Amino acid sequence: MEADPNSAPRAVHVVIVGAGFGGLAAARVLAEAPVRVTIVDRSNHHLFQPLLYQVAMAALSPAEIAVPIRAVLREERNITVLMAEVTSFDLAAGSLALADGTTLAWDYLIVAAGAETNYYGHPEWALHAPGLKSIEDAIEIRRRVLVALERAESAADETVRRQLLSFVVIGGGPTGLELAGAIAELARPIAASDFRRIDPSWIRVVLIEAGERLLAAFDPVLSEKAALSLAEIGVTVRTGARVTDIDARGVWLGDELIPSSSILWTAGVRANGLAARLGVPLDRAGRVLVGDDCALPGYPRVFAIGDVACFETPSGPLPGVSPVAMQQGRHVARLIARDLRGDAREPFHYVDKGSMATIGRTRAVAQVGRLRLSGLLAWLMWLFVHLWYLIDRRNRISVFLDWCWSYLTFRHGARLITGREKR
Amino acid sequence: MEADPNSAPRAVHVVIVGAGFGGLAAARVLAEAPVRVTIVDRSNHHLFQPLLYQVAMAALSPAEIAVPIRAVLREERNITVLMAEVTSFDLAAGSLALADGTTLAWDYLIVAAGAETNYYGHPEWALHAPGLKSIEDAIEIRRRVLVALERAESAADETVRRQLLSFVVIGGGPTGLELAGAIAELARPIAASDFRRIDPSWIRVVLIEAGERLLAAFDPVLSEKAALSLAEIGVTVRTGARVTDIDARGVWLGDELIPSSSILWTAGVRANGLAARLGVPLDRAGRVLVGDDCALPGYPRVFAIGDVACFETPSGPLPGVSPVAMQQGRHVARLIARDLRGDAREPFHYVDKGSMATIGRTRAVAQVGRLRLSGLLAWLMWLFVHLWYLIDRRNRISVFLDWCWSYLTFRHGARLITGREKR
Repeated sequence: MEADPNSAPRAVHVVIVGAGFGGLAAARVLAEAPVRVTIVDRSNHHLFQPLLYQVAMAALSPAEIAVPIRAVLREERNITVLMAEVTSFDLAAGSLALADGTTLAWDYLIVAAGAETNYYGHPEWALHAPGLKSIEDAIEIRRRVLVALERAESAADETVRRQLLSFVVIGGGPTGLELAGAIAELARPIAASDFRRIDPSWIRVVLIEAGERLLAAFDPVLSEKAALSLAEIGVTVRTGARVTDIDARGVWLGDELIPSSSILWTAGVRANGLAARLGVPLDRAGRVLVGDDCALPGYPRVFAIGDVACFETPSGPLPGVSPVAMQQGRHVARLIARDLRGDAREPFHYVDKGSMATIGRTRAVAQVGRLRLSGLLAWLMWLFVHLWYLIDRRNRISVFLDWCWSYLTFRHGARLITGREKR
Repeated sequence: MEADPNSAPRAVHVVIVGAGFGGLAAARVLAEAPVRVTIVDRSNHHLFQPLLYQVAMAALSPAEIAVPIRAVLREERNITVLMAEVTSFDLAAGSLALADGTTLAWDYLIVAAGAETNYYGHPEWALHAPGLKSIEDAIEIRRRVLVALERAESAADETVRRQLLSFVVIGGGPTGLELAGAIAELARPIAASDFRRIDPSWIRVVLIEAGERLLAAFDPVLSEKAALSLAEIGVTVRTGARVTDIDARGVWLGDELIPSSSILWTAGVRANGLAARLGVPLDRAGRVLVGDDCALPGYPRVFAIGDVACFETPSGPLPGVSPVAMQQGRHVARLIARDLRGDAREPFHYVDKGSMATIGRTRAVAQVGRLRLSGLLAWLMWLFVHLWYLIDRRNRISVFLDWCWSYLTFRHGARLITGREKR
């Protein structure tokens, strides 16, 4: 137990907003620095977002991919964790305000608040097409998909049943592919084994992408492979298809309606709304423009990292992926230590270790440097990397066992409908 | 896949309402009988209620103690599972109505709808003192307990902190003891390891029982042992204490206030409200009065079993415990088979295999016939019995591993705060 940090002997105080990949990476480096750290997050857990789609698809339980932030930082005695909502910043005064009315003063501030779902000016679509950013989102998506199957089992009307058994995923990035593949692999086997009145062939999974090809950030060869893999597991891919409206009946592409009662939105993200409260210039996606040391122009002691930041490079802004956030987190933590020693700052350089996306059992694509992988080998690599990066040892074991089980039995372990109807 | 059961060749149709211990036990016996069965439940999962308190206390994940009903009955091709809400019964016509407007005709009806929390005329207490009957209840209790600790970490005011760190469990039955013991064993170790400003000695756990002793249904010797065990792990037991009010400040015992922001209610249950819609005589706890064959007087083809039924014996009505429900479920299923063969009915006889309650790590009490056990041996027996009765093999492994992990590390694996504030 320590005294209230505001009354502790005056050490340099670093406040980190957000305990995602970036915030935690910074905290871990700062645990070794002569500073005291407060990490503020509105939720009590660090979420391993790359596996969130598996919670939405009933393959994993929420606690398998989320760990209490204070459990992760248990051993770091110079770090205090606060579960609180940040309401405003005063960059000039060096403080921020929390929803409970208290103020937190800082010497250094690291804003690592992450991203939120972007409906590009159509917030009303959120009701019918939830995004996938939090445990609550995943549980809601799981509820909708499972309820659709339950209702289809008792639906007498053909049109109603068709709508219930049609699943639409919007967005052809890695998350969209993962979700579409997982729905196909969840719904058809359980329709065959656990339901009595649903013919698995009635189930339709559609993946919609506005651009010319899937996985725009990947090599076109891999986009091709991914499209083939999706076709093999029975996902209909619609590229160059622009969504014009979403309502209770389904998804509209101009005059064409794709009837569906389970629509999932993975078509875009923007910076967390907190970025706008900093009072500094933002880009079109609401991200904070930062210098080459990840600091805000004019505020050398304020950093923005990860999905909340726009870090320009000759080939465009860095992508919103976890390696960028983690590398930036470690970088700014080291810069703070250098500042304290009186050493000069160094610019941030992103080291791209590659990208991967999985498309169901035994299928994935990956690019590492000049290497292009697809199929079983890419899938094994995906498994290994995701288990390796899971932050908690216990969860690593538990996820591994769940995957073995599902792989052997084709069954999903967390098919719970909980919570109440939201629309 | 099968055709709509209403159009199938005319086999005797048994409808079971509720897929708890009683309903599932009946369904499994009827799977071997020349009947078709429809089992209706408003949720999609069978819940292993004896371990629900471990979900509330962040030791297990919901999916570890809940399995989809249709997965349990996957192999039984004469059984159809419907997730639906029953709204009314017409016993004379032999049918029931569902919330979606459809009607289900039956030749035999088994009502196994279970129990709900009973606030004895004070429904307003539910807001401040949730009961523990569903996964949603357990997640809400988990949220409240974990949020109280988080708020205590940042509370500046001494009175507020005292209220936040005081946990009150109302009801001295097995569930109350299990919860009180589990809170003490959850909160103090994580306060010491994961929090910076909470002294574990500030945490207070109070168990309130209106009667003279804990575990009224057990041998008084075991009530004594249980009280001692609770004292050892730091639970304050208040017997003969009648709750007069519950509000946002805490629990009132006459003029005495026990300040608390985490109050849990395990002081009583009554039959599910569906019982009242049968239009037959009920007892004071809202349970259906049944004959010695578990059938409703005047309706030999309608049975009520488990917590929803009042089955009188010379020593009073049978208790609301899972062995009663399971034995009654199997009994009425066999009676239906006897009816179809033209054999005479036999009365139901309950075989009491004993009772047990656990009070944290290595402590429990059990009575089996004339045997009275307490301490480590009773605890090991409790572990074994609960693992044995977990319906799903995969969950048996997963719960076993989680218990090993918690036992070795003193850590809880599912400390997630999810959902939104409800009060």
